[in-house]
Amino acid sequence: MRNVGLVIFDDAEELDFMGPWEVFSYAAKMTGQDRVLTLAASVRPVRCAKGMQVIPDAPLSDAPPLDVVLVPGGIGTRREVDNPEMIGWLRKVCPTATWVTSVCTGSLLLHEAGPARGKRVTTHWSFVETLRARGDVTVLEKVRYVRDGNLVTAAGVSAGIDMALWLVGQRDGVQVARDVQRGIEYDPAPPYSADV
Amino acid sequence: MRNVGLVIFDDAEELDFMGPWEVFSYAAKMTGQDRVLTLAASVRPVRCAKGMQVIPDAPLSDAPPLDVVLVPGGIGTRREVDNPEMIGWLRKVCPTATWVTSVCTGSLLLHEAGPARGKRVTTHWSFVETLRARGDVTVLEKVRYVRDGNLVTAAGVSAGIDMALWLVGQRDGVQVARDVQRGIEYDPAPPYSADV
Repeated sequence: MRNVGLVIFDDAEELDFMGPWEVFSYAAKMTGQDRVLTLAASVRPVRCAKGMQVIPDAPLSDAPPLDVVLVPGGIGTRREVDNPEMIGWLRKVCPTATWVTSVCTGSLLLHEAGPARGKRVTTHWSFVETLRARGDVTVLEKVRYVRDGNLVTAAGVSAGIDMALWLVGQRDGVQVARDVQRGIEYDPAPPYSADV
Repeated sequence: MRNVGLVIFDDAEELDFMGPWEVFSYAAKMTGQDRVLTLAASVRPVRCAKGMQVIPDAPLSDAPPLDVVLVPGGIGTRREVDNPEMIGWLRKVCPTATWVTSVCTGSLLLHEAGPARGKRVTTHWSFVETLRARGDVTVLEKVRYVRDGNLVTAAGVSAGIDMALWLVGQRDGVQVARDVQRGIEYDPAPPYSADV
């Protein structure tokens, strides 16, 4: 059994981790190969960026070995990037994870902790310059996600869904990813795209 | 201040309500016009279909007047469709809501409670026949969402994002919907669509 750990914290953006949660959990239900869990500093409820309260599955200190680490973004990353407990934990677990991933501004934490240094990455469009200004990183724009070795960074919020589906294809095979896509009816059709 | 109420229950599918939550909350942050809240039988934590534990904002019995009611799907709808408290609550609040909406198999609850009777609706592709078999309803297929009067029903899971964005456009104007789309970087690009 492999473990997929989604790190959450106060003011994490809801869809940043809930999109990948749905995708990874759906795949896990089909394959029986993964346990997907939310991890936080403690198991007290986390209050997300838009106010949703989520009870974490386990504290960071009690996380099992992780095959996938996912760090979401949200306004809380401004605090967590300077939180030695969070950064120290990422420094400890990322080197042994098969895949290290982020959504949105979660890339800032992966840069602070090390895995994104010297790598090609992406982030939310409004934080491209912020991430570039940190140095020692190549930030790509107008892409849904970037894979550089075992590091996969997604653009803002909803891009985590595409990234997680891609990763399911890499880990479980393309057919499983397509079955998940069909299961969650992910044939997106954003309204108002036409200039009417 | 208008209220957007997302009904949740044990085994509700996570992304069914979390996608719309992100969209409505993002719009509310921009306009200051809405309060978005999760509602459940009680305020004890709800365990969703894939195991995420969410603390509801308010009990159904204490819900404020709702401008939008949203009913998600998930395996829990099989139980809730026969739950007199849930169905009775929907019968009470839907007639005074401006918009009555569902995602995925949430449409089954809206049919049981009345708002979907005699209407054109959609649901998750695998429940089209189940919903049709209930009678007195026209179930459309291969559409993201269907609007019939003030009833808006979305297809499975991720379709709630498209539906919520459309509804933001109706309630707050198309420009706000486009700004939310840009904020959550909703330029979806599902991988593995090509036959490789």
